[in-house]
Amino acid sequence: MEFRIEKDTMGEVKVPANAYYGAQTQRSIENFKIAQDINKMPKEIIKAFAYLKKAAALTNFQAGVLPQEKSDLIGRVCDEILEGKLDNEFPLVVWQTGSGTQSNMNVNEVVAYRGHVLKGGQLTDKEKFLHPNDDVNKSQSSNDTFPTAMHIAAYKILVETTIPGIKKLRDTLHQKAEAFKHIVKIGRTHFMDATPLTLGQEISGYVSQLDHGLKAINNTLAHLSELALGGTAVGTGINTPKGYSDNVAKNIADLTGLPFITAENKFEALAAHDAIVEAHGALKTVAVSLMKIANDIRMLSSGPRAGIGEIHIPDNEPGSSIMPGKVNPTQCEALTMIAAQVLGNDVAINIGGATGHFELNVFKPVMIYNFLHSARLIGDGCVSFNDKCAEGIEPIEANIKKHVENSLMLVTALNTKIGYYKAAEIAQKAHKEGTTLKEMAVKLGYVTPAEFDEWVVPAHMVGEIK
Amino acid sequence: MEFRIEKDTMGEVKVPANAYYGAQTQRSIENFKIAQDINKMPKEIIKAFAYLKKAAALTNFQAGVLPQEKSDLIGRVCDEILEGKLDNEFPLVVWQTGSGTQSNMNVNEVVAYRGHVLKGGQLTDKEKFLHPNDDVNKSQSSNDTFPTAMHIAAYKILVETTIPGIKKLRDTLHQKAEAFKHIVKIGRTHFMDATPLTLGQEISGYVSQLDHGLKAINNTLAHLSELALGGTAVGTGINTPKGYSDNVAKNIADLTGLPFITAENKFEALAAHDAIVEAHGALKTVAVSLMKIANDIRMLSSGPRAGIGEIHIPDNEPGSSIMPGKVNPTQCEALTMIAAQVLGNDVAINIGGATGHFELNVFKPVMIYNFLHSARLIGDGCVSFNDKCAEGIEPIEANIKKHVENSLMLVTALNTKIGYYKAAEIAQKAHKEGTTLKEMAVKLGYVTPAEFDEWVVPAHMVGEIK
Amino acid sequence: MEFRIEKDTMGEVKVPANAYYGAQTQRSIENFKIAQDINKMPKEIIKAFAYLKKAAALTNFQAGVLPQEKSDLIGRVCDEILEGKLDNEFPLVVWQTGSGTQSNMNVNEVVAYRGHVLKGGQLTDKEKFLHPNDDVNKSQSSNDTFPTAMHIAAYKILVETTIPGIKKLRDTLHQKAEAFKHIVKIGRTHFMDATPLTLGQEISGYVSQLDHGLKAINNTLAHLSELALGGTAVGTGINTPKGYSDNVAKNIADLTGLPFITAENKFEALAAHDAIVEAHGALKTVAVSLMKIANDIRMLSSGPRAGIGEIHIPDNEPGSSIMPGKVNPTQCEALTMIAAQVLGNDVAINIGGATGHFELNVFKPVMIYNFLHSARLIGDGCVSFNDKCAEGIEPIEANIKKHVENSLMLVTALNTKIGYYKAAEIAQKAHKEGTTLKEMAVKLGYVTPAEFDEWVVPAHMVGEIK
Amino acid sequence: MEFRIEKDTMGEVKVPANAYYGAQTQRSIENFKIAQDINKMPKEIIKAFAYLKKAAALTNFQAGVLPQEKSDLIGRVCDEILEGKLDNEFPLVVWQTGSGTQSNMNVNEVVAYRGHVLKGGQLTDKEKFLHPNDDVNKSQSSNDTFPTAMHIAAYKILVETTIPGIKKLRDTLHQKAEAFKHIVKIGRTHFMDATPLTLGQEISGYVSQLDHGLKAINNTLAHLSELALGGTAVGTGINTPKGYSDNVAKNIADLTGLPFITAENKFEALAAHDAIVEAHGALKTVAVSLMKIANDIRMLSSGPRAGIGEIHIPDNEPGSSIMPGKVNPTQCEALTMIAAQVLGNDVAINIGGATGHFELNVFKPVMIYNFLHSARLIGDGCVSFNDKCAEGIEPIEANIKKHVENSLMLVTALNTKIGYYKAAEIAQKAHKEGTTLKEMAVKLGYVTPAEFDEWVVPAHMVGEIK
Repeated sequence: MEFRIEKDTMGEVKVPANAYYGAQTQRSIENFKIAQDINKMPKEIIKAFAYLKKAAALTNFQAGVLPQEKSDLIGRVCDEILEGKLDNEFPLVVWQTGSGTQSNMNVNEVVAYRGHVLKGGQLTDKEKFLHPNDDVNKSQSSNDTFPTAMHIAAYKILVETTIPGIKKLRDTLHQKAEAFKHIVKIGRTHFMDATPLTLGQEISGYVSQLDHGLKAINNTLAHLSELALGGTAVGTGINTPKGYSDNVAKNIADLTGLPFITAENKFEALAAHDAIVEAHGALKTVAVSLMKIANDIRMLSSGPRAGIGEIHIPDNEPGSSIMPGKVNPTQCEALTMIAAQVLGNDVAINIGGATGHFELNVFKPVMIYNFLHSARLIGDGCVSFNDKCAEGIEPIEANIKKHVENSLMLVTALNTKIGYYKAAEIAQKAHKEGTTLKEMAVKLGYVTPAEFDEWVVPAHMVGEIK
Repeated sequence: MEFRIEKDTMGEVKVPANAYYGAQTQRSIENFKIAQDINKMPKEIIKAFAYLKKAAALTNFQAGVLPQEKSDLIGRVCDEILEGKLDNEFPLVVWQTGSGTQSNMNVNEVVAYRGHVLKGGQLTDKEKFLHPNDDVNKSQSSNDTFPTAMHIAAYKILVETTIPGIKKLRDTLHQKAEAFKHIVKIGRTHFMDATPLTLGQEISGYVSQLDHGLKAINNTLAHLSELALGGTAVGTGINTPKGYSDNVAKNIADLTGLPFITAENKFEALAAHDAIVEAHGALKTVAVSLMKIANDIRMLSSGPRAGIGEIHIPDNEPGSSIMPGKVNPTQCEALTMIAAQVLGNDVAINIGGATGHFELNVFKPVMIYNFLHSARLIGDGCVSFNDKCAEGIEPIEANIKKHVENSLMLVTALNTKIGYYKAAEIAQKAHKEGTTLKEMAVKLGYVTPAEFDEWVVPAHMVGEIK
Repeated sequence: MEFRIEKDTMGEVKVPANAYYGAQTQRSIENFKIAQDINKMPKEIIKAFAYLKKAAALTNFQAGVLPQEKSDLIGRVCDEILEGKLDNEFPLVVWQTGSGTQSNMNVNEVVAYRGHVLKGGQLTDKEKFLHPNDDVNKSQSSNDTFPTAMHIAAYKILVETTIPGIKKLRDTLHQKAEAFKHIVKIGRTHFMDATPLTLGQEISGYVSQLDHGLKAINNTLAHLSELALGGTAVGTGINTPKGYSDNVAKNIADLTGLPFITAENKFEALAAHDAIVEAHGALKTVAVSLMKIANDIRMLSSGPRAGIGEIHIPDNEPGSSIMPGKVNPTQCEALTMIAAQVLGNDVAINIGGATGHFELNVFKPVMIYNFLHSARLIGDGCVSFNDKCAEGIEPIEANIKKHVENSLMLVTALNTKIGYYKAAEIAQKAHKEGTTLKEMAVKLGYVTPAEFDEWVVPAHMVGEIK
Repeated sequence: MEFRIEKDTMGEVKVPANAYYGAQTQRSIENFKIAQDINKMPKEIIKAFAYLKKAAALTNFQAGVLPQEKSDLIGRVCDEILEGKLDNEFPLVVWQTGSGTQSNMNVNEVVAYRGHVLKGGQLTDKEKFLHPNDDVNKSQSSNDTFPTAMHIAAYKILVETTIPGIKKLRDTLHQKAEAFKHIVKIGRTHFMDATPLTLGQEISGYVSQLDHGLKAINNTLAHLSELALGGTAVGTGINTPKGYSDNVAKNIADLTGLPFITAENKFEALAAHDAIVEAHGALKTVAVSLMKIANDIRMLSSGPRAGIGEIHIPDNEPGSSIMPGKVNPTQCEALTMIAAQVLGNDVAINIGGATGHFELNVFKPVMIYNFLHSARLIGDGCVSFNDKCAEGIEPIEANIKKHVENSLMLVTALNTKIGYYKAAEIAQKAHKEGTTLKEMAVKLGYVTPAEFDEWVVPAHMVGEIK
């Protein structure tokens, strides 16, 4: 490979000749040879940096501390980053300095050097038109840019991927709940036969879980909307022009179309990432919901002949490399694996969030890496589960009917007629002797056949259907 | 011990002669010999049951399905439970059936049999005036009472213990932030010397964390305010009178003085406890905040001679059994241990929440046990930390002054005057040669002594003090 | 309450007149009002302290630094503690200083003052025959005694409660595996019908899990057998007589009958508790196994009419307060709740273990609290599950037969005869048209009826039964 | 893109014309659009499959059920996979079916179709020389191949990456411990000044932690060495030739050079992955150790002027984008972030491990994904930390000397001369009045200056140096 020489405050570094990045990026590549093939800094963070660098340049120009030409040039490169044209220029990994300084400098270098080239310069020029620190990073520190990028990336992925994915699944389940609202089936508590409900009611519980989950996520957006930018090195805003914090937040809000504001307290914004911890608390709540929902659906569709078999889900692929004709609830499996991952990610985030010291939390990359992972998995996972499984759920009415009619727990309808103890006697004896409830109820002399038929009607035991 | 005979639907059981509980409680004692000395069902759950049993009896009376005399008698025993008069009657442990049925029956039995005695009966009477199932549990199931008790207990402990505890600490820290707002000290990022801020600013970050934490908890109260009661066995409300769900929630709200409402979807309310998962997500966020705050305070007060030593915290007890005169940051240690516990409890709750099946989650006791544990620990822990540590925080001004004046990072003030690279050169050489910044800055010829004194003023580097 | 005055290096403290403890215990009660009713320092730690104080006194006497009379007196009080006679003298909570200093001093005070009384003195005597620090704590520090007590308590509970509990369950399951080794049943993968195996084979998997779990626990005992005692304040062994470390470990080994040795590196032994982290890693592995086993058993016993229903487990108690005659897999529920708790405890322990600084980890109490909790829960839980559930497992042969005979996955036996693709075609069409496998296989012309009967024999598909 | 048509038991599928994979791989790409850019099935799993497919083919040939030509051809493609020549042919993600069936089929397809081409065929040939199911997957099921691949991949990465990485760091720290064994420094407990030890002793504690961690990992290798292969669909070994299990394990052992054996109980081997849970329990223990070690080193090197500053670590890169000349402990930060990640991964693995049902655990991909991630991070992280930080640790003797000489805790040496209480008085008064210990000790009349100088010698307080 060919190289050119770049330098930083520590001296000279050999950089690939055509790379737009410079000395500090190169140092990081060499200093952090950790999982370089699998754990690149997430692209969402790089794009978030593009928004904020453009907004900062604009704000600096508006404040009179950066010439318009430089501001415009920075903005142009940021647009290229947002368009994905410079994706290969960001080779750093998550496992770097905990402040994300090196990724901030990676962006600063790429913006400066690509800008220099856009203006007609050469990468090999000693002096470049834009300086990574003095121009691109002007009025900024890694300590406030990285957490700002975290919030931008987190907020964006939630509203663009996670929430729409959950909503899509929620809406499909709601349609299923409506469609199946009158299909009476056996209920199961403790995995044991219980009193009946309708299939629509059962599914409506999942809808309610997701509705609450969406509310929970929405409740956390306010904290995420607060941006650290303007706090610079330790939260005091050293080296920023007057009005900078508010203005740069406003510019970021304009560029992203999202309601970002400047954090009221910058010391928290640098030293703690409770907003990430809190918002991921909502994601883990959704993961818990998804685990429940996907488990239920896998169990309800189990069989085909020796399981519960009350619903059918789509056959998407051959299920077994050895058992011919087998079809498995693979979308349920992917979704429950995702839930397990999110619950693990939550712990990594908690530990990162808890282990900041003084003016700076230095677990920033691991925190946002896990956050974006979870947000993406839930969003993608819900869409996949929706499209390839939930939309195709259909009742298997023959099995549903058989299960509810055989159930001993229909006896509960007699509680208010003959009391709990006599009802229990009927159920226990019917179970022991393998009779129907009705046979035993009449045999024991507690009800007449006519009374039984009047009182024990599964469809009357499911309450009011809304 | 003397015994009497009680029976349930499975037959006769020997019960301690004077116990107000009956057959099912006794069966549970014998069936679940698991950590009986340390893991009793939390008293908060028992009290929550007292509210709900009283409210259910009243609602049943109002609906015309329970005579007033029975309703009143049930209410009287519930009041005794709330007054703590029957504490010894609830011997069951957390590690029982996952629906909490046995604790529900424990309450049903105690209310029925104590009520019978209050009315003048004997515990040995075969027939008792109140029946545990048919009267005390009327219009109820364990499946809707236990989750209702969970929400009542969780909501109450949050508003009575957790939130006031956090607020107390928050207010003290806010006072300290105000009191120390002009004390300029060195900042530390990456545990390394950084640009200055004031001690008040540093502490204001903690205040902001707790303010956000309080908001996060408050955001979760709405979901907790939804009560499962009225869903009975599987969520359909079988065996409840008309209007029961709304009325019983209203009665519980009246009795507790808290804004409880009936859950819109009872199927979720029995089958999932996402409200607990979500609310504990807020508690774990606060735990993360407390870990950061307590760690900072322990480190800032470290020394007395070989540490950071910028603040003094109260000496509460001799710190060492071997090192005479040693005093340790013990309140910080208790609080950080609490944070670790809460983060562990969170995982237990997540797993419990994720592992429900069909119409019932059967991890109810373990979920509420961990929730109440965390809520209590945070509440008590904040008060203890407040009273015995935070209130006594005082700056050690000599050390603060020495640290800020020696700092090489004051050079940052020169960035906007001479550029980042020259400023870096000054700091690096001063570090290497052990000089002051000023000496080196002048020696290198980048500034005059007068310029240095004008430009590098710690008190001017801390931004605007609000 | 009546009081007497005790004092420590910080001054005078009012102590309950008859309490054997003194000033430092009292200070801790007042300084740590955190969950005092539910989180006492575990009794296993107090007993472990009794062993070590007795051993230390003996070792000090043998080294010539403590008179025999004092040594004997200390030993006598320690014996009283071990007999449970002084249980009320240890009122401190887990949430104290992270070194456990206050519990060490609690023991020192009780031993000193109770010893003084045993020798004929009065609690109100100003000078007492034994001094808490200079005699009882001689050659010790909290920093080495508390971790020593942790290892003694952890090792003891593992070998006395946890391992025997697991073994009991393992042996019962092994008997069941043997008893049911020839009962051919359907297999289930992905919760879907699969090729057959025997019920004994299925259960043998659980036995193998527990066998491996027991090995995993045993593998961690070596690290737990290393004792910190002799390291004193920071690991250097300051203020100990020659040979003390080895001798005191030997004395502890003699007193407990367990193979304790002195830790080779005392700096680790005070500053880190990786042995606890590692050993709990084995406990969490067992928790994972128990979750799987208990889930399987709950699902296999589900029904009675609309579930899988292949095994019967004992009916221990009425299962529902509303559904008469219902019986639930309550022991499975207790055990799975325990598993959830242990997995949560693991995280608390990890965080505690990871957050030590320099010469001392100060998350000792929270670590051992969670460890002992898990060890106890697993031990007690396995015994309860064994006695009240596993021993009573019986096959429901009618259902087992029906399930295996109906299964479409028996087609797998044809793979080697007619190839995977044709076999798949048979299974898929039989499923679609609701026929038996045989009917469809013959109809498609791939096999003759005689070939089918020869080739597709469930009992030939379960491999060699050992 | 150009396509060709492939088919499986469900019908025809369009596949990229030049892809070696076939219908089932393509279905999975379309069915699981979940994080496809970031979560490919780990390459270690693909390589493990190459070993096992080659070994299975050889074993089948040896058993007389596969022609030598087919066996050889399969082996040749497997060798190409191991050489990395077919890396682009494995596009599937972690979030697929929980049995990993689709990745097994991906390998089966690539081996079959690439083999066909190697033999001179065309991808577009309808019939191919090797059949994915009937030849490449012969005597196998996804259910036993995937867990076998898990164990091969896990074992290999532990012995090739994780253990060597830890050992490298361990050896460097051991050298430092030896080199600094006589440098007396202050000890710190509770982050507070304590009695002295040497820098070498302090570091020896880290060495001991890593030594124990290596033992812990080694203890788990035996369980990982057990292979599921031969269990096929549900553990019974259906469709395998006689002796297959033992022979295929032996062939895998030969090919990998690692001591793999066949699992004694195949039912466990398919239905549970406790070996992964257990082995990751050792990895999380090491993560806990690394967090402690890296935290200590970051704190000991803190400053340069307002921190603890007792050691110097290498300056690898400019530390701040705003604070000129700042250098940060970035390797400590990467390593502690890794520790947080591993502790999170542990929870994901636990949940996956706990949630298997009946004959198959279907959280296989998420479990091995997290396992390999942790193993890699620890291995790479230790090497990076070693090379860029640990090797360069040097004492800052001036600061070390100053701290130890100023320490009040040297008073502990007087305990055995004048008693704990008088010693405490000296330390407390010296602290209060800001004097040296000696001044106060003499002033209070407890010792003469000569006695003080004789008794209080830091170098005599550090015990025996081994």
